[in-house]
Amino acid sequence: MITPEKYPSKLLENAVNEFARLPGIGRKSALRLVLHLVRQDKEDVTRLGNALISLRQDIMHCRRCHNLSDTPLCELCSAPSRDNSVVCVVENIRDVMSVENTHQFKGLYHVLGGIISPMDGIAPSDLEIDSLVERTEKENLAEVILALPATMEGDTTNFYIYRKLKGKGVKVTTLARGISFGDELEYTDEITLGRSILNRVEFEQSLGK
Amino acid sequence: MITPEKYPSKLLENAVNEFARLPGIGRKSALRLVLHLVRQDKEDVTRLGNALISLRQDIMHCRRCHNLSDTPLCELCSAPSRDNSVVCVVENIRDVMSVENTHQFKGLYHVLGGIISPMDGIAPSDLEIDSLVERTEKENLAEVILALPATMEGDTTNFYIYRKLKGKGVKVTTLARGISFGDELEYTDEITLGRSILNRVEFEQSLGK
Repeated sequence: MITPEKYPSKLLENAVNEFARLPGIGRKSALRLVLHLVRQDKEDVTRLGNALISLRQDIMHCRRCHNLSDTPLCELCSAPSRDNSVVCVVENIRDVMSVENTHQFKGLYHVLGGIISPMDGIAPSDLEIDSLVERTEKENLAEVILALPATMEGDTTNFYIYRKLKGKGVKVTTLARGISFGDELEYTDEITLGRSILNRVEFEQSLGK
Repeated sequence: MITPEKYPSKLLENAVNEFARLPGIGRKSALRLVLHLVRQDKEDVTRLGNALISLRQDIMHCRRCHNLSDTPLCELCSAPSRDNSVVCVVENIRDVMSVENTHQFKGLYHVLGGIISPMDGIAPSDLEIDSLVERTEKENLAEVILALPATMEGDTTNFYIYRKLKGKGVKVTTLARGISFGDELEYTDEITLGRSILNRVEFEQSLGK
């Protein structure tokens, strides 16, 4: 059934080819998107095309936290209202957005750009770990919060960073593991439930401050 | 849970907004696509953007069959090898591609741009039906094949076109309805099975020519 499709137009074919290179978009979806664009206003499609081009050409990584940014130093790193002494270490920029959306954190970030994963060939040297150690010393940080995924790779990376920072006079903390909001005890796995008993908190503290 | 997301970059936000306007792409998928693009080569992303812009700016509809085309008269309509006396009427350009992929049809097409659907407010005047009637007369067509969807709307449109073309000396045919290749009789609906008995064909003819 894999016959190459015959497109009525080169322009159409090019656009389909380009869309189909994106992850999760097959040729059928690409064609559907392209036919949708053909029916839109010229200005709208031009704006889409230019948004993608200028995104790639002009975006940069913040030289301090390695988050995506429009400026050499990102908005968060240059905001006077943020606490410069606490840094939250995350895997990627999506996680920065997730933590920001909680409105519970007023410090800065450090984006590793991935986590240690021998299976995927990602070694510590591929990540922004050395720059984190350097930054911890240079900026004399009070606390580094490890906010990596609760997976084997996340734990490995947590431990690796913890050993690198040990003895540098910085407090290293990690996100609380426990029962998610709305979860039933019955359906919680034993490791999570066990840890949540070991790490139980004073009831008053659990209400937040 | 609907808090507006805080993006670390305006460029990123713009690109996400533009992608999220496409059908079937939510904000989460848009962000995933955009972060993918940030990691690609500049040339690749520029090519994607330009492919979309020039698609919308330069594509046209064939003045004869209304298919999408790079030229005023499309490739199919201007090919000397095609049979100019038979026209296959389809709903949209995807259906042109579907019929072309069978390699069983050597005539030309007529793209209606939709089918009659009072529910969606699509009237005959919104479609390329008048131009089909005009073309039938002007080009002195021998046969018009109705290849519309096997739905209520498809049947309505078939019937509408049939009445418009009646008495103009053109043979009007429609696609065979029957059991799909690979189908079990047990799971075929009664209407299809019934029709396939009424419209049974000589065994030798069923082998194709």
